[in-house]
Amino acid sequence: MDITLGVALDYLGVGFFAVSGAIAAAERRQDFVTFLFFGGITGIGGGTLRDLLIGAPVFWVRQPGYLTVCALAAVLVWFWRGWMASRRALLWMDALGLSAYAVVGSVKALEVGLSPPVCVAMGVLTACFGAVIRDVLAGQPSVLLRREIYVTAAILAGTVFVAANGLGASMRVSSAAGVLAGLGLRGGALLWGWRLPGFSPPEPG
Amino acid sequence: MDITLGVALDYLGVGFFAVSGAIAAAERRQDFVTFLFFGGITGIGGGTLRDLLIGAPVFWVRQPGYLTVCALAAVLVWFWRGWMASRRALLWMDALGLSAYAVVGSVKALEVGLSPPVCVAMGVLTACFGAVIRDVLAGQPSVLLRREIYVTAAILAGTVFVAANGLGASMRVSSAAGVLAGLGLRGGALLWGWRLPGFSPPEPG
Amino acid sequence: MDITLGVALDYLGVGFFAVSGAIAAAERRQDFVTFLFFGGITGIGGGTLRDLLIGAPVFWVRQPGYLTVCALAAVLVWFWRGWMASRRALLWMDALGLSAYAVVGSVKALEVGLSPPVCVAMGVLTACFGAVIRDVLAGQPSVLLRREIYVTAAILAGTVFVAANGLGASMRVSSAAGVLAGLGLRGGALLWGWRLPGFSPPEPG
Repeated sequence: MDITLGVALDYLGVGFFAVSGAIAAAERRQDFVTFLFFGGITGIGGGTLRDLLIGAPVFWVRQPGYLTVCALAAVLVWFWRGWMASRRALLWMDALGLSAYAVVGSVKALEVGLSPPVCVAMGVLTACFGAVIRDVLAGQPSVLLRREIYVTAAILAGTVFVAANGLGASMRVSSAAGVLAGLGLRGGALLWGWRLPGFSPPEPG
Repeated sequence: MDITLGVALDYLGVGFFAVSGAIAAAERRQDFVTFLFFGGITGIGGGTLRDLLIGAPVFWVRQPGYLTVCALAAVLVWFWRGWMASRRALLWMDALGLSAYAVVGSVKALEVGLSPPVCVAMGVLTACFGAVIRDVLAGQPSVLLRREIYVTAAILAGTVFVAANGLGASMRVSSAAGVLAGLGLRGGALLWGWRLPGFSPPEPG
Repeated sequence: MDITLGVALDYLGVGFFAVSGAIAAAERRQDFVTFLFFGGITGIGGGTLRDLLIGAPVFWVRQPGYLTVCALAAVLVWFWRGWMASRRALLWMDALGLSAYAVVGSVKALEVGLSPPVCVAMGVLTACFGAVIRDVLAGQPSVLLRREIYVTAAILAGTVFVAANGLGASMRVSSAAGVLAGLGLRGGALLWGWRLPGFSPPEPG
């Protein structure tokens, strides 16, 4: 992936997730410091976990620009109340952030030479763990339990990227394919309420 | 410890904990992706924390076999409903996984030259943290708060292993002693409801 | 910072936070092992996260004295019931621990050459994350959601330290200034109920 696209996807993911964290604070009528804390943790939590797991330097520690993006997201949510009228748009932004971040995480794992299933797992953790931490800290049922197609879209985005890359497609093409696949699946879930079947125990008797 | 026994204990712990994670997802009627996520986090969460703390490469990142075991555990719980009639057997499997993993964690800490109390602490974290994360993500009271002999059995397993090893016993003998001690204590708690006294404030007056 | 002061602040923070963790266990009438677990996690959790993020060896892994301090805190809370009559004093101890730890975290980040905003962020994580994990594991609303001036005091302590240090003050003076600033703000919140304004959506119409 050329640097420009990679960096853009990265800031995109951080910014969108930071917005969703700040909104979780807003919904609880919290103060601005909590906006910052939730925005920061949601924005950089997933990528932080990925870097710790693959043994890379944590991405934002030497590049304070990521913290700045999170702070700007908190400021935006605090002052620009327009987001309240655009919850639907926010879900789409989140879908884009989810897909972008799943690809970003897989790319980073691929670059340090990890195997395909681990690359997909890293993409999923990168994309989903910020939201998981946000939900745990906010005391709300985790996105994992909501029976939405969410983690599944991250798995698809990472898998399509890794598969396309393995088949010889360029980083740019593989990344775009991964993002589009994840966005398509998550988008379909948003539009038509797609969900996977839940576990049901067998009928007794 | 010869490699065969160590590796066997390791996969045993990962597999048993992954099963318990997948069951937590089943009890909430979740979909298969949540089975995978819970199975994975419960199976490898404790060992991941241990590796991060001692500065070792995270064990499953370069060995995708562990992720495969977690995925198989999720498949097993989804398709083989027999576990529902065998909750008691599962508790014993979990007790075995707990003891095995406490010893595995202590062994790994010992191998990098840590002091005995830290080795025991690493064993306890390895054995218990997967279940702690599972409970937090599932929104249920953590195993820490259930007043069962659970963490205590992990402490005993780690302590017996470290003590036996310090007294000159072979890795194989020390490991077996640790696993048996932990399993005995946890088993006694399962059979006879053993528990430690809870904190009680003094009577007023 | 000369070593004596730094180490003293460090043990002070660990000890005070371990006490607050053990008290969380006492309030739930837990057993002694849970006292140990909560004391340990609250005492060393924040510093552990900081060390992982900056890529330093985790501070307590090679220095078992920190675990000993956590265990002593658990013993103290279990046997010396005097703390029940001194909840107010405990809040002040916690305020001192919070401020001390925010400075300790910023110092450590500064020593590895991180930029000022990241140093402040490390101080805040060091000071607050133990309590956050304690609350999550205890199943109580996180300190982040209580609308108290808590994280804010850690931000102030870290910012004052980093600013004083950047202006050329000695480590000793900068540290003292940071601790006093954080303690003053948190103390004011305890005495007079200071709080930041919460987010309020605009009136409709």
